[in-house]
Amino acid sequence: MTPPPAIVLLSGGLDSATTLAIARADGFAPLALSFRYGQRHACELDAARRVAAAAGVREHRIIDIDLRSLGGSALTSDLAVPKDRDLAADEIPITYVPARNTIFLALALALAEVRDAADIYIGVNAIDYSGYPDCRPEYLAAFERLGALATKAGVEGRPLHIHAPLLHLSKVEIVRRGLALGVDYSLTRSCYDPDAAGRACGHCDSCRLRRAAFAALGRTDPAPYQ
Amino acid sequence: MTPPPAIVLLSGGLDSATTLAIARADGFAPLALSFRYGQRHACELDAARRVAAAAGVREHRIIDIDLRSLGGSALTSDLAVPKDRDLAADEIPITYVPARNTIFLALALALAEVRDAADIYIGVNAIDYSGYPDCRPEYLAAFERLGALATKAGVEGRPLHIHAPLLHLSKVEIVRRGLALGVDYSLTRSCYDPDAAGRACGHCDSCRLRRAAFAALGRTDPAPYQ
Repeated sequence: MTPPPAIVLLSGGLDSATTLAIARADGFAPLALSFRYGQRHACELDAARRVAAAAGVREHRIIDIDLRSLGGSALTSDLAVPKDRDLAADEIPITYVPARNTIFLALALALAEVRDAADIYIGVNAIDYSGYPDCRPEYLAAFERLGALATKAGVEGRPLHIHAPLLHLSKVEIVRRGLALGVDYSLTRSCYDPDAAGRACGHCDSCRLRRAAFAALGRTDPAPYQ
Repeated sequence: MTPPPAIVLLSGGLDSATTLAIARADGFAPLALSFRYGQRHACELDAARRVAAAAGVREHRIIDIDLRSLGGSALTSDLAVPKDRDLAADEIPITYVPARNTIFLALALALAEVRDAADIYIGVNAIDYSGYPDCRPEYLAAFERLGALATKAGVEGRPLHIHAPLLHLSKVEIVRRGLALGVDYSLTRSCYDPDAAGRACGHCDSCRLRRAAFAALGRTDPAPYQ
């Protein structure tokens, strides 16, 4: 039996690389979808390409979308990325990109419809979500309902499934799961503020969560650091 | 009192030009948002610019997004636009762009968040929707719920309002309303298949609905036809 297709949102970071491996383990033929959206760090997309190739993904689509013209985020404008901030602070960080997951899921929904896929994978997680509102479980459930109403497939009675397999996992559990599935984390990039060579800063939220997870497993993060 | 901002999705067609006039009449300061998404007819964007200028809109943003790479629609690929088809046919037409309104509303949501706007206007209508699933009232209600969950504003308790003032209007009622508000329909373009000079074909679904509406009001559509 041919595995059914699933759209996997792939940023090139640790979470999405793990999500891709899980989609495959779940029995799907993953179709990777990435975005060139004015990231300050283009090395993310290089990482996404390497991760997709290593996973043997048959199709990897990269959609251009100019989110810089919206402004409002340190990840796509000239605002400074916060370093060594209190990760337990209950606030929405400046690195939040307005409505990003809604935009990305909308495009995944479009590709799902074109490719006749009923499944979308996204690597968000609620525990380490650092205050992004569009990573919450109730948000994903609302998008699933929207997707069923928005598309031809939905009109014809075929529901849409948004899979967020990392949703209730800690970063340590994510890395453990990925290592068990053979993910090569040296290919991934998570840093919000890498240098020109693509090496991670080690001090932004993303770097600190990631390094702490490897350390908790008695390992060293294989990604390059400055 | 300064009028509150509202994001208005502006395609340059008859419906969105009317919606813009209604947003202003409702007491909002409209911020127009258009998309360069691989339309075969770039004259749409020229029309959007003219309509925004004529309405005295202070800010008109055009976001680049390459939907052509998704395929799947006669409006963004090389499939033929259907002519003189049965408008009463209960089918989703080939001109349907997968998940288009979801993508456009997601971007409007992002801009609403950046501009601190709680209101989005979209010119969809249910009666003449020609079979597009993402023009239905229940779809818009689902997006409103999603928007409240997706954003900082929502987390802070400020709801999002999706206004679809044309939703229950016939094309005749839309044109009547727009004429009463002073919309200059000669600036708008609706055709799915215009010629190089931007003149309408007169035979696609959009042209036929539009011309019939003006005719029913005893008027001639002022847009240029081939």
